[in-house]
Amino acid sequence: MQRSALTRHLVQKHAINLVALIFLIPSVTDIYAAPKPNVIVIYADDLGYGDLACFGHPTIKTPALDQMAAEGMKFTQFYSAAPVCTPSRAALLTGRYPIRSGMCSDKRRVLFPDSGGGIPANEVTLAEALKTAGYKTACVGKWHLGHLPQFLPTSNGFDSYFGIPYSNDMDRSANHKLGRKIFLKPEVKFWNIPLMRDTEVVEQPADQTTITKRYTEEAIKLIQQNKRQPFFIYLAHSMPHVPLFRSPEFQDKSRRGLYGDVIEEIDWSVGQVLDELKTQGLEQNTIVWFCSDNGPWLIFNEQGGSAGLLRDGKGSTWEGGMREPTIAWWPGHIPSGSVSQELGSTMDIYTTSINLAGGTVPTDRVVDGVDLTSVLLNEENSPREEMVYYRGTKLMALRKGPWKAHFITKPAYGREPFQEHDPPVLYHLEHDPSEKYNVAQDHPDVIKELKMAAEQHQKTVKPVPSQLEIPLPN
Amino acid sequence: MQRSALTRHLVQKHAINLVALIFLIPSVTDIYAAPKPNVIVIYADDLGYGDLACFGHPTIKTPALDQMAAEGMKFTQFYSAAPVCTPSRAALLTGRYPIRSGMCSDKRRVLFPDSGGGIPANEVTLAEALKTAGYKTACVGKWHLGHLPQFLPTSNGFDSYFGIPYSNDMDRSANHKLGRKIFLKPEVKFWNIPLMRDTEVVEQPADQTTITKRYTEEAIKLIQQNKRQPFFIYLAHSMPHVPLFRSPEFQDKSRRGLYGDVIEEIDWSVGQVLDELKTQGLEQNTIVWFCSDNGPWLIFNEQGGSAGLLRDGKGSTWEGGMREPTIAWWPGHIPSGSVSQELGSTMDIYTTSINLAGGTVPTDRVVDGVDLTSVLLNEENSPREEMVYYRGTKLMALRKGPWKAHFITKPAYGREPFQEHDPPVLYHLEHDPSEKYNVAQDHPDVIKELKMAAEQHQKTVKPVPSQLEIPLPN
Repeated sequence: MQRSALTRHLVQKHAINLVALIFLIPSVTDIYAAPKPNVIVIYADDLGYGDLACFGHPTIKTPALDQMAAEGMKFTQFYSAAPVCTPSRAALLTGRYPIRSGMCSDKRRVLFPDSGGGIPANEVTLAEALKTAGYKTACVGKWHLGHLPQFLPTSNGFDSYFGIPYSNDMDRSANHKLGRKIFLKPEVKFWNIPLMRDTEVVEQPADQTTITKRYTEEAIKLIQQNKRQPFFIYLAHSMPHVPLFRSPEFQDKSRRGLYGDVIEEIDWSVGQVLDELKTQGLEQNTIVWFCSDNGPWLIFNEQGGSAGLLRDGKGSTWEGGMREPTIAWWPGHIPSGSVSQELGSTMDIYTTSINLAGGTVPTDRVVDGVDLTSVLLNEENSPREEMVYYRGTKLMALRKGPWKAHFITKPAYGREPFQEHDPPVLYHLEHDPSEKYNVAQDHPDVIKELKMAAEQHQKTVKPVPSQLEIPLPN
Repeated sequence: MQRSALTRHLVQKHAINLVALIFLIPSVTDIYAAPKPNVIVIYADDLGYGDLACFGHPTIKTPALDQMAAEGMKFTQFYSAAPVCTPSRAALLTGRYPIRSGMCSDKRRVLFPDSGGGIPANEVTLAEALKTAGYKTACVGKWHLGHLPQFLPTSNGFDSYFGIPYSNDMDRSANHKLGRKIFLKPEVKFWNIPLMRDTEVVEQPADQTTITKRYTEEAIKLIQQNKRQPFFIYLAHSMPHVPLFRSPEFQDKSRRGLYGDVIEEIDWSVGQVLDELKTQGLEQNTIVWFCSDNGPWLIFNEQGGSAGLLRDGKGSTWEGGMREPTIAWWPGHIPSGSVSQELGSTMDIYTTSINLAGGTVPTDRVVDGVDLTSVLLNEENSPREEMVYYRGTKLMALRKGPWKAHFITKPAYGREPFQEHDPPVLYHLEHDPSEKYNVAQDHPDVIKELKMAAEQHQKTVKPVPSQLEIPLPN
């Protein structure tokens, strides 16, 4: 990063008061980061680790995301903090494992239309932190952190909201007889999902056929409107969550079938956003992240995605459930065409973004996100050393360095019970990314260390009520 | 392609005799392709579809191959013509399914040191065809098409040879007691594999530690020596076939462990070759292919590779056994950064190379390779419509367009018997690249068409004696 002329001047003139100066301004980063970069987080829903061409998919074309990676940094060991939707999104927006905010439960894995809970008011969302740092903030797309007024984006730091309040499969029209097959039928009439603007329902059922296109148009309008001030756009696509929909222009475009069409429309959308940033001359001052909330929903067969070489998918704490195809883009700052094998998490997007914005990461609570700036700008080692894998409130597994110990396992779906392991099942994820070869017997010291890390982590967790178990008030 | 000034002049001057002219010269391609491009085929041994960063591997760094893909064309549906070594190499060098040359068998899947057979003299190898077209030809690396003098590279169109005659695990030192574990011990003394120059053994055991480096040095010397004339270099690495070896500089370099070190040394080697072409100003006049002979050898666990999202590996006719991570590079001709989902096969490297060289593809026999020039230069649809999957002499499966029918299945290794299927097991490989969802019931017409295609193919196959069953003469 370059110091601005003014900052250089100030630092030189007041060198003797530098220590004092540091205490007077929000953060050290502020000295260097001028102007504050815009932040855009593009979040896909149920996209698998293996579903982009640049992550190895053979029949889905993703030229815009490939180009984004070629101009930015591709992360190959980057995690969501949960294997399902609500807790994953809570972690991204709070920088904390969902166990800390109560945005998880063992009874209901996500929020539903009959849920009365949502993201607690005392959480400092990424939008709130960036708003305090002077950003215009907007949420476009799927929310899923509570649909009562106090939980909506506009009550949680976002200046505006345009999107659906929960998953696109949650509000089924009553009068159909298709059973579970309905999930595989992309017909608007089968679904009653509302589309909202700020706190109002503006369309019900939402026409999901054009929803990716409309989210994209909204994001582009926001870039145009806010180009003279720092902005944060959280663009959370509701696709490729089943039921799958795509615009007519993308129908039968992909060789991968309907699922591929949907991904190719998201890819088009990413291209539109990056192109608009270039058109507005904002590309050197905007950091864009692309990621997914959890792994592919494998129970939907050809309408679910692929975790590539990773094991299992959405819902599980195997790698396929939580490792995500992640790209960071910030021309002139992030080395182009770089591939990072460093550990990262969506919670780190929180901390990194607030620091880059010169904002304040809360210090009155545990924040699990770390600052990845040095990874992004200088390809240094990640300050993240661990990942904890929760299913609901259960600590299932822990990764430290290349090692992952599964204390409890269970396939993503089905009636198989939770299986506890002592000693835990141990994998060297960098030698064995597909979690095939249990090497617990050869590494008792590693197991001891990972058990201790899990205990230490658990000591930092304070019990809070689950938001996912609260029913709608009468 | 550009016409040369001379060709333009001739064509203009003798326009009226154009038809006659076409019959007087070796091929129409010759009119346009001036000067003849050099051809380099880099062939890895047992590298899996998912083992390169640009094909999705998370912990193997392949910056040179990624760059090669960024400057060239990455193929996502490109096949070897056999799931094991000897027949795969025979197909690449003859442009024909190994069933036609006798380079396959149901008793022994490859040639061994006690084999007396090899590539038949009446086959026209790629080296022979290019030599006839005026090329200097060199084989560097693993041969495995017969080690008796009449079968060696120098008896089959190559001006020179430097490498090992069969797999690096085939000549074990007798005095060890490690059993099968020896495959996982990279110690030179356990192996007695000879290193040959032309027809002489120059080192035994070959020091495999430096073998990738020495192949690379040989290839670079050949580029330097032949830079003023068309040349063909077949650079067939003996790695990453077990036992795995790498140079000291690559020891513990990769996060993926020993296997990753080996791939990263091959990647380095590719970078050296492409750099030398650029140094010599030959990059716009050299087409370089990178491919693998078959899928990863999964029975060796962490010392075997990964087929990514594809099913099974080396030895099987599931996709993981035969689909290969393939890159074609020819700056100024092949569109940079292109991703082709078109069907291709190593047999097509044969036909394409001979046509680009203005040589003659044999017409007195069935050649299975098709010309991919229009795919490479103009991203057109592939002329290849089918792939036939053989295991030994058994026609196991057939792909036509996106559909693959398995008439017989068997896992790569183990005692499970061959299982015949009627109706065959049917997959839509573009919707379902991992071969998970049998859709035979829904597509009786497709099955009929694929059965007919298999019958038609079999009508073109004439019985020939197997070369793999011939013992060494006394």
